[in-house]
Amino acid sequence: MKHRRTQSGPRSLSALGEKGLLHLLTSSWKTDARIRTGVGDDCAVLRGEGKAHYLLFKTDAVVEGIHFTAKTPPGLIGRKALARALSDLAAMGATPHSAVITLGVPAKESPSRLRAIYRGMETIAKKYQVNLVGGETTRAAQLFLSVALLGECRGYQPVLRSGARAGDLLFVTGSLGATQKKHHLLFEPRLAEGQWLARHKLASAMMDLSDGLGADLPRLAESSHVSPQLDLASIPRARGATLKAALNDGEDFELLFTVSPSHVKSLKKKWPFSTPTHCIGVIRPRGKQTGGSNVAHGFDHFQQR
Amino acid sequence: MKHRRTQSGPRSLSALGEKGLLHLLTSSWKTDARIRTGVGDDCAVLRGEGKAHYLLFKTDAVVEGIHFTAKTPPGLIGRKALARALSDLAAMGATPHSAVITLGVPAKESPSRLRAIYRGMETIAKKYQVNLVGGETTRAAQLFLSVALLGECRGYQPVLRSGARAGDLLFVTGSLGATQKKHHLLFEPRLAEGQWLARHKLASAMMDLSDGLGADLPRLAESSHVSPQLDLASIPRARGATLKAALNDGEDFELLFTVSPSHVKSLKKKWPFSTPTHCIGVIRPRGKQTGGSNVAHGFDHFQQR
Repeated sequence: MKHRRTQSGPRSLSALGEKGLLHLLTSSWKTDARIRTGVGDDCAVLRGEGKAHYLLFKTDAVVEGIHFTAKTPPGLIGRKALARALSDLAAMGATPHSAVITLGVPAKESPSRLRAIYRGMETIAKKYQVNLVGGETTRAAQLFLSVALLGECRGYQPVLRSGARAGDLLFVTGSLGATQKKHHLLFEPRLAEGQWLARHKLASAMMDLSDGLGADLPRLAESSHVSPQLDLASIPRARGATLKAALNDGEDFELLFTVSPSHVKSLKKKWPFSTPTHCIGVIRPRGKQTGGSNVAHGFDHFQQR
Repeated sequence: MKHRRTQSGPRSLSALGEKGLLHLLTSSWKTDARIRTGVGDDCAVLRGEGKAHYLLFKTDAVVEGIHFTAKTPPGLIGRKALARALSDLAAMGATPHSAVITLGVPAKESPSRLRAIYRGMETIAKKYQVNLVGGETTRAAQLFLSVALLGECRGYQPVLRSGARAGDLLFVTGSLGATQKKHHLLFEPRLAEGQWLARHKLASAMMDLSDGLGADLPRLAESSHVSPQLDLASIPRARGATLKAALNDGEDFELLFTVSPSHVKSLKKKWPFSTPTHCIGVIRPRGKQTGGSNVAHGFDHFQQR
């Protein structure tokens, strides 16, 4: 197993960071012809039957003390555990299919709290037509739920992070910076919006905002090998949110997507949802000065839209 | 979210037990027509395209201090995490497809240990042609890996726990009671054997032995509404294992399956594997005296086989 060799690795997780850790753990992974897209997008994309059928596969976890606390209403813990993964399906335009749950549970945990957590998960599963089909319970020092979710795109292509092209315009659903006031527990995953964008081939790239626009936009840009320019004044802010909050607060769970200039008119005309969508920037060719992490400073051209 | 209502639930997990907890959490789950079998078998069974295509969906976790320790060679931790879930696919006769991993990791964890864990997982993934396609990392108090695994049966039916009929004979692969000596880290999931039994329609019911024959056989019996009778003398024991160990030790990860009397000759003649298989009992109609948990006392008729 060669674990002696591993002495040469980096010294600490904090030095490495999440991106470095992911690279360390997964960069040697290889996939076969059954897989269209592995690590690096919101979900993995598995080839289904025929040309326009894909299975989307995702896992996501919530841990006590990190994603919720002892004071969080239990039903909302279960709701959040599933909603987070649903948001990743939404980000590719997929329809939910089935989920399995791993529950890690301390010996002293109250069964009634667990039941309430599961009732909350069941309620949102029903709302979005997710089949809860199985799971596993294990003892653990700390309560956690890991949700594995399967979805599909049938008759159309999932929208990847990597499809943005120079000249595309950048859009976001809803408003940003609303992580106060239990938004992280109560948000609605943008499934209908994501599916609609994918079915109508209107989004060239898409992802969900889980770590804040300032952290997530560079990921989309890096996947697409482009540089984004934000029009800061156009970023829709939640009531009371500062620009800083709109850029940096995590757990918005809105959709960030790019649209070819030739499709923008169609998008604006046909958008059928009460959730608003706003243009917040433009995609530029990858420049030497403006790296993937450039998300600052207003973009004036943009006023032309 | 009605969490006040949950005050009426049972007081403690230990009073409830794992079976009681599962019932509490999942008995209200409902699934739609896309699902063939939800909670209660080794994997969930999802309908694929056409009549003889099924997707199998499973999650399983390993937690530090419970499934492995600080002294466990890291590569074997990763190996075990995936092998356990593979054994559940084997138990239904499925072929592995793809896996996603949730990693819960304490801040002070060593990146090189994590890398070695993932290398161990990658090695067994390659061996059994599992695509590692994604995952999620989160901070946690205790190291854990939750593996969600997707498999399929294409052109044949998965073998459920519920298909055993009175008169069927009971078989097991390999030998039991070998949980000493790192067997729980080094076992080979019986994928080829499970697939062969399913493809040839030789097993009427099947499961893998993860909690010991004495605990698992009653589960198969309960699913099938039958009573098993064991021929204790016929149970193949690992070198040095007592009968008690063969009955009670967990983590054997052998296959337990039932075979119609009309298929036993064919099974014995065609079995193509170096792993032996032994007949260890017979299935009886569910009797009032002999409940699902009756796994004691030798079975004499059985010597006739």
